[in-house]
Amino acid sequence: MDVVQELVTSSDSKLVLLVMDGLGGLPHPQTGKTELETARTPNLDELAKRSSVGLQTPVAPGITPGSGPGHLGLFGLDPVRNLVGRGVLSALGVGIDLNPSDVACRVNFATKQNGVIVDRRAGRIPTEEGARLCQILERITLPGVEIIVRPEMQYRAVVVFRGEGLGADLSDTDPQKTGVPPLPVQARGTDAASQRTAALFNEFVRQADQLLAHEHPANTILLRGFDRLPHLPTFAERYGLKSAVIAVYPMYRGLARLVGMQVLDAGHEIEDEFETLERHWSEFDFFFLHVKPTDSSGEDGAFDRKVQVIETVDRLVPRLLALHPDVLAVTGDHSTPAALKAHSWHPVPILLSGRYVRVNPWVEKFGESDCARGALGFIHASDIMPLMLANGLRLQKFGA
Amino acid sequence: MDVVQELVTSSDSKLVLLVMDGLGGLPHPQTGKTELETARTPNLDELAKRSSVGLQTPVAPGITPGSGPGHLGLFGLDPVRNLVGRGVLSALGVGIDLNPSDVACRVNFATKQNGVIVDRRAGRIPTEEGARLCQILERITLPGVEIIVRPEMQYRAVVVFRGEGLGADLSDTDPQKTGVPPLPVQARGTDAASQRTAALFNEFVRQADQLLAHEHPANTILLRGFDRLPHLPTFAERYGLKSAVIAVYPMYRGLARLVGMQVLDAGHEIEDEFETLERHWSEFDFFFLHVKPTDSSGEDGAFDRKVQVIETVDRLVPRLLALHPDVLAVTGDHSTPAALKAHSWHPVPILLSGRYVRVNPWVEKFGESDCARGALGFIHASDIMPLMLANGLRLQKFGA
Repeated sequence: MDVVQELVTSSDSKLVLLVMDGLGGLPHPQTGKTELETARTPNLDELAKRSSVGLQTPVAPGITPGSGPGHLGLFGLDPVRNLVGRGVLSALGVGIDLNPSDVACRVNFATKQNGVIVDRRAGRIPTEEGARLCQILERITLPGVEIIVRPEMQYRAVVVFRGEGLGADLSDTDPQKTGVPPLPVQARGTDAASQRTAALFNEFVRQADQLLAHEHPANTILLRGFDRLPHLPTFAERYGLKSAVIAVYPMYRGLARLVGMQVLDAGHEIEDEFETLERHWSEFDFFFLHVKPTDSSGEDGAFDRKVQVIETVDRLVPRLLALHPDVLAVTGDHSTPAALKAHSWHPVPILLSGRYVRVNPWVEKFGESDCARGALGFIHASDIMPLMLANGLRLQKFGA
Repeated sequence: MDVVQELVTSSDSKLVLLVMDGLGGLPHPQTGKTELETARTPNLDELAKRSSVGLQTPVAPGITPGSGPGHLGLFGLDPVRNLVGRGVLSALGVGIDLNPSDVACRVNFATKQNGVIVDRRAGRIPTEEGARLCQILERITLPGVEIIVRPEMQYRAVVVFRGEGLGADLSDTDPQKTGVPPLPVQARGTDAASQRTAALFNEFVRQADQLLAHEHPANTILLRGFDRLPHLPTFAERYGLKSAVIAVYPMYRGLARLVGMQVLDAGHEIEDEFETLERHWSEFDFFFLHVKPTDSSGEDGAFDRKVQVIETVDRLVPRLLALHPDVLAVTGDHSTPAALKAHSWHPVPILLSGRYVRVNPWVEKFGESDCARGALGFIHASDIMPLMLANGLRLQKFGA
């Protein structure tokens, strides 16, 4: 919607997008209630009545989004036309200031025996161990390329090649299963830059295997998600918003940096994030506050833990409301039902609160069933930003 | 969404799309209930509670679809960008193995008096009579063209011209009303192939009039819907599905063959179709089961008969459920309200059942009013296939 950008006008309204990652769920077989419906959420329930609630589709019906597409939709971008490679997300997440010509990829430390991968995550080594191994990999040298290696969490890391004439149209070495050898990096097309870069990455893997030969269990690496920085419009350009991200996990900070959000120190716990919000309240127009453990617990199939995370957020909601945001949206980037132990395609509950929303006093609970009958109806994720702007009186009339 | 094709993964889940042609209706003036709401459908009602129900729009709001666009939408294709001429549908429906260069058109046997059409359907002659007349028309010879004439039902037939250098950009001879003469076939554009083919079809009509001169009431023919075979992606290519169609009426088999479905012997009655499903259950991933008389009764304005057809289907639903499909969608290709005696633009009730759907226990009945408040919301027909695939766990995650 380029229309939105043309209509943006200034205002001092403050907007908050509170994202509980993987919020949407599926009913528990014994109770018929989802995680969100099971959680005791008196604050969100009371707010839901005085809000417009609905269900939002992150990408398209039936499509299960990864974290990248899920968030780009929330930021008002078309997630299909703006795919971002995993390597770029990881690099931004750990704070690497990518140049447009850099090529980034995600690294898994892994275990190889007799030439085949036996563990794609090297026994989920601790984060400190991953950091030590990254320092070893930084010893690798290649002609004409600066190599940056940084640890993420546990067995995950990121590598960036910086130099002239690199290409990013490259295939993964991760075979996505065990019992088989890793794949070579290959240029997917015919461009000479990617072919040259494929050879460089293969040499990087060869040297890594030598350096890690006596490590255990992380004696090799798997590379995937090669990409470059995409050019995305920033929140300042597109919405006229001075925006900030509060997220404990690196990737979500990385996603927000892609659209120009300033990264605030989020601390480690959900409560820390709300404190950060309070501390910086006067400095920004827009806050994206990201809560991760709803998704992690869903992916673990831990229904009750997901319920508890939602209840933790609910207890913090009054502190957010005490700041008197002009517009507050509470939603997820996708559903992660504990029943599926994975992201899913199901639409995500959304609550839109503000002085000018059409309220739905018949709603009793912030949950999937009530959201299916809410005043907001069924929307697309990319509708959320225009709705937040409009409710913050930040969009002018379209046409005469 | 080409995205869907990229995400398809293998599974042994079984999907069934049960289409009651023209299912949607309008309220009876005395009861305020539609055909579907009037029908006693205990099985569908019980299923609806345990499903996600909603309303689906076949083409776009306000657009009344023909059978072609209605079904292409259900098959996940854009009905506006994939128009299929009636001639092609008819030819495929009667089992003609069209070549890409063939030109097909639909034939109506009609009655002409004093040079004007007095009955566009020749008194709806019986099917056997139509078949006899087709054999007469096969005697026609034209230079450089093989002519195939086949009967459909009653007064309907299809003619295919096979040869080199034919064009299909041709206008109908059917004036769509009585009391006027038939029109000549004309090339709509300037391409020489279509101009030459127009002359050939006009000569075909001239010879047909001679051969039928002493027949009654079918003493002439009307031609319409000239077209060639479109290239559509098959269910195997696009969805990785081994698919089959069960349909009594030729055109729907033709539509399904366009997307690569295998045609099963459907028998003559609705019950036969369910028997066919049972007999072939182990052989396919996806079944498209088409029930015609909901539409025919709607077109006749026969409210009660349409109710009865729906009740017949409802009584057969337990046999379908006994096969334990992983995903079942029940819907129509468009609405055909008895009140309008015609196809209409109204959205069509849809029920989506499967282990991972968000259920709507507040729904009491499978009907238009309850579907407007269901958990599935308002979707497009082309969303149905991605949703069925997702619920059959046949789509991978999109993006990292």
